[in-house]
Amino acid sequence: MSKQPISVIFKPYEKTVKVLEGNTLLQAATQAGLVLNTPCGGAGTCGKCRIQVATNAGNPSEADILNFSATQLKEGWRLACQTVVQQETVAYVPEQSCFTGRHQIVTESQTPTVTDLSPALRKIYVELPKPSMQDNDADVLRLEAAIDKFEIDLPLLRRLPSRLRHQEYKGTAVLAGHDLIDFEPGNTTDQCYGVAFDIGTTTLAASLHNLVNGDELAMTSQMNPQVAFGDDVLSRIQHASLSADNLEDLGHSVKTAVTEMILDLCEQASISPHMIYEAVFAGNTTMEHLLCGIDPAPLGQSPFVPAHARGLWLGARDLEMPINPHGRVYVFPLIGGFVGGDTVAGLLATNIHDNQGTVLMIDIGTNGEIVLARNGKIWAASTAAGPAFEGARIRCGMRATTGAIEKIVLNEDVHCSVIGNVSPVGLCGSALIDLAAVLRKVGMISSTGQLLPVNQLPNTAGAMQHRVSENSEGQLEFLIAHANQGSADGRIVLTQRDIRELQLAVGAIRAGIKIMLKQAGIKAEAIDQVFIAGGFGSFIRRDNAQAIGLLPIEIDLNRISYVGNVSLAGSKLALLSSRARQQAETSARQAKHLELSLDLEFQMEFADAMIFPDLP
Amino acid sequence: MSKQPISVIFKPYEKTVKVLEGNTLLQAATQAGLVLNTPCGGAGTCGKCRIQVATNAGNPSEADILNFSATQLKEGWRLACQTVVQQETVAYVPEQSCFTGRHQIVTESQTPTVTDLSPALRKIYVELPKPSMQDNDADVLRLEAAIDKFEIDLPLLRRLPSRLRHQEYKGTAVLAGHDLIDFEPGNTTDQCYGVAFDIGTTTLAASLHNLVNGDELAMTSQMNPQVAFGDDVLSRIQHASLSADNLEDLGHSVKTAVTEMILDLCEQASISPHMIYEAVFAGNTTMEHLLCGIDPAPLGQSPFVPAHARGLWLGARDLEMPINPHGRVYVFPLIGGFVGGDTVAGLLATNIHDNQGTVLMIDIGTNGEIVLARNGKIWAASTAAGPAFEGARIRCGMRATTGAIEKIVLNEDVHCSVIGNVSPVGLCGSALIDLAAVLRKVGMISSTGQLLPVNQLPNTAGAMQHRVSENSEGQLEFLIAHANQGSADGRIVLTQRDIRELQLAVGAIRAGIKIMLKQAGIKAEAIDQVFIAGGFGSFIRRDNAQAIGLLPIEIDLNRISYVGNVSLAGSKLALLSSRARQQAETSARQAKHLELSLDLEFQMEFADAMIFPDLP
Repeated sequence: MSKQPISVIFKPYEKTVKVLEGNTLLQAATQAGLVLNTPCGGAGTCGKCRIQVATNAGNPSEADILNFSATQLKEGWRLACQTVVQQETVAYVPEQSCFTGRHQIVTESQTPTVTDLSPALRKIYVELPKPSMQDNDADVLRLEAAIDKFEIDLPLLRRLPSRLRHQEYKGTAVLAGHDLIDFEPGNTTDQCYGVAFDIGTTTLAASLHNLVNGDELAMTSQMNPQVAFGDDVLSRIQHASLSADNLEDLGHSVKTAVTEMILDLCEQASISPHMIYEAVFAGNTTMEHLLCGIDPAPLGQSPFVPAHARGLWLGARDLEMPINPHGRVYVFPLIGGFVGGDTVAGLLATNIHDNQGTVLMIDIGTNGEIVLARNGKIWAASTAAGPAFEGARIRCGMRATTGAIEKIVLNEDVHCSVIGNVSPVGLCGSALIDLAAVLRKVGMISSTGQLLPVNQLPNTAGAMQHRVSENSEGQLEFLIAHANQGSADGRIVLTQRDIRELQLAVGAIRAGIKIMLKQAGIKAEAIDQVFIAGGFGSFIRRDNAQAIGLLPIEIDLNRISYVGNVSLAGSKLALLSSRARQQAETSARQAKHLELSLDLEFQMEFADAMIFPDLP
Repeated sequence: MSKQPISVIFKPYEKTVKVLEGNTLLQAATQAGLVLNTPCGGAGTCGKCRIQVATNAGNPSEADILNFSATQLKEGWRLACQTVVQQETVAYVPEQSCFTGRHQIVTESQTPTVTDLSPALRKIYVELPKPSMQDNDADVLRLEAAIDKFEIDLPLLRRLPSRLRHQEYKGTAVLAGHDLIDFEPGNTTDQCYGVAFDIGTTTLAASLHNLVNGDELAMTSQMNPQVAFGDDVLSRIQHASLSADNLEDLGHSVKTAVTEMILDLCEQASISPHMIYEAVFAGNTTMEHLLCGIDPAPLGQSPFVPAHARGLWLGARDLEMPINPHGRVYVFPLIGGFVGGDTVAGLLATNIHDNQGTVLMIDIGTNGEIVLARNGKIWAASTAAGPAFEGARIRCGMRATTGAIEKIVLNEDVHCSVIGNVSPVGLCGSALIDLAAVLRKVGMISSTGQLLPVNQLPNTAGAMQHRVSENSEGQLEFLIAHANQGSADGRIVLTQRDIRELQLAVGAIRAGIKIMLKQAGIKAEAIDQVFIAGGFGSFIRRDNAQAIGLLPIEIDLNRISYVGNVSLAGSKLALLSSRARQQAETSARQAKHLELSLDLEFQMEFADAMIFPDLP
């Protein structure tokens, strides 16, 4: 057997990598920097990592045969995760199989402005009196007299005396909180930058700030390359738990992306990464654990216990951050196993602890985080909605990337908007909600979620009647559009099973809200405001979300607002304000972490919540 | 030229080492673990590292010719620092050239007992409730609930979750102040030890303590192997300043000795070094800098500025301590460039800040440290006495090791006590003081320090008259005893120049005390107590010290007491009591550091102080 590396070329990206025989095309793609869709973590079950092998496709695997038609198999379509590289290969990667930079990542938010710019990282230029016999205090005391009392580690203490003398007792003290982390030659006080990160399960977003005036200088986002190890946190926890190498791979994966993003931010703003002294990270509990190299195994099984709770204040070197080597990293505090630093950042960004009224914040995603705040009290919970909103487990589901139908409106018939104005290849979560709401409104779906057969369709279905048919498995399905590639039979459909998946996802969040309101002793009508947070939430139509029960129907539409990526917004605040950072720590401990599934009525509420609301 | 290592055998120690051609015998001896006397740092000027080469002694160097008679040169006597190894060599090392374990090192002291045993290092055994869905707080919070809020570093945080689970939520938390440094399996609370060190310029002393009950389990001492790089701090500073390698060599040298001592303590007490969690070090400013790898160059020139002032709280790994790798090191706070952690430890051990009266503490050595305390105020200063008390620069001077005359009494003629009850080979500092006092009392030395010629000797000289003669250089000298080896002509003498050296040393300390009293506005008569601290002080006779002006003659003998090795005693206190450690930090900053040489009257006082006091 040859141990020579074998070339694999990915089209249309024109990326070539060399891998050893025995690697899968998924591994090769990851190596090439392509992030294929693998909600199942490469187990061959989700059928989302479709690629077309242009040259000598080998024998199809069992999973291939299940996922592709005979024609497709003949044309070289395969699942990348199941295809072992045995010879030089050219593979075509369709857009719906691969995350691209064109993925919709929300980085915007309504960030409260920082009124008290007080970053933990600050620089002070000093010109010290030179020591004399009359004034021969220790170097550390001399410097402290000019700034403030500080801590100093041994490596810097070893360098400080010669620094002071070579620089003739002038220079720029770099302080991280109460720690002196460097003493630079000259006056570099105008060169002090920091980065704020939102590390989501699916997407990463970051911004670069001038810590002197708080200005935002650049923004960047990209997919979390960890998706190659599974789409949801549980599959990543499982992967990480298997071996120390896996844990390291996951950490390395996100850190590689973080490095790219930092370099991108620096390029945009024309600054040196060396002038970045702090990086702040807000992410869910699992993402933060993986970033820090903490085994998330206990998060993968009941009772879902995180390792730490308070924020972590680490050295840039500890996490191999490509910023100033003396710089620092702040990782957000956590509320619980599934209510993480991203939620805490959200509390901060929405200033929810100061809000006088009753506020409900919902971050709709694979895990729906729900926060309720009233009179300074905060309740927080997580509910497992599953990956339906991300397009997973939905027959023609896909992420909100180019080619995804992202909006469906009813105008006698259904009309689709496609991301990138290209031919549609699937539908993403927001369109799924739209479609379910439309079909519900016209009566094509019953309150129990049943797609009615052709012969029972109401007249209101109108032109859409012809879209319903029975598929080869005897399941009813609704034809949304025709695709030109990738889909097994060129049809983009909504199946009865898809509706069930949506009901499960909606039910989890709806029941979560109900239980939380009950435990807090608040009726839905008492809610003054609903904040919809997070990337996905920003794309949904409020009325449609209410129509399928995802948002409480009792709330007036104008009381429901989008707050955007509050995780990134909170991360920025913590970067720019020590007070905000302190508030994050306080809120994280103050928030009461509710375990919804412990509520005796949860199962009943969940079953109830799966029933679509009555239409007005 | 051969690059093969060459054997060198040192007798009578029977130590063999292999060195490369071109190394000196001094380097070979250091490699063999022998600490030769090198007050000059190996420059060939002090003539103290005499050895006898038994085989093929090469041509004598210029320094050899100056230091040895023709007969001695012929017999193979050489200075080890000037003799280059060129072939297999057997060398005899006389006792007066080498520090041996029999050197008198004071480790005893009147230590105030620790009433509040509260070491910074403590262990707490916990059995935590296992997490459940009702109680799924983070691991860190769970542990904190059982002990107290703590800080934890990333490496331990990474290990903590699996530790807790493998140990079924039971184990021993190891705390260093507010830092959790380890979580050990089982209940190890009875295995918690610490070591206290006094790191002197010449000698190292250490004790091992059970931190659970404060018991002292073992004690050890040895020479500071750094003496190979020079006898006094200035020569070591000079050596360290030359290159980073030299600095590292000095650090390595003392750390090697510290390692040996820790292993010795462990062997004595039959414990594992792994069970030692803290090491405390008190030393003068230079010794502490060298231990920590901080370049002491600024201490070597005016204005003598140390790098740090507060105590250092370091990781055992930072200083490569052979204790528990998670353990800690506390290095005492400093008062100034020449008033270091050893003096602060002395303040602590004598409880001087709490003393109601006026107390003068003197540590007589190469640097005399002088502390005055009155009504809670503390003044501290250092005065450069030079190495005369250590036997350096004295013709027949030597350290207080085997063969040294350490006591001289007058009983018609002088009578000597020799350490080890062997034939005398030289005299050490305490005998030097005795002899000067005796000669002064009988009128053989004038108040200006002149040794009177034979024809001017008073009758009181009696039997001692015949001991005075003129040497070949035309200098008067006093014959103390006959030596059987090592001395140039077999005579142990006190020369006129030796008396001058003694006057300089005494004058420095006496003037220091005077200036300090003046600056504090206190008259000598107001002193309630004099504490004589340090290794050397313990061996001097108070009345003789007064007779030559080293101690204030105004003070009643019974108000002068020996307090022993207060540096080690203070180090122990800081190990056993966090309150004491806090007190050390407070006292170090509270003490007013006086620069005696800045006093306009210093030179005049110094000149005055060289005149021996009038005899009663």
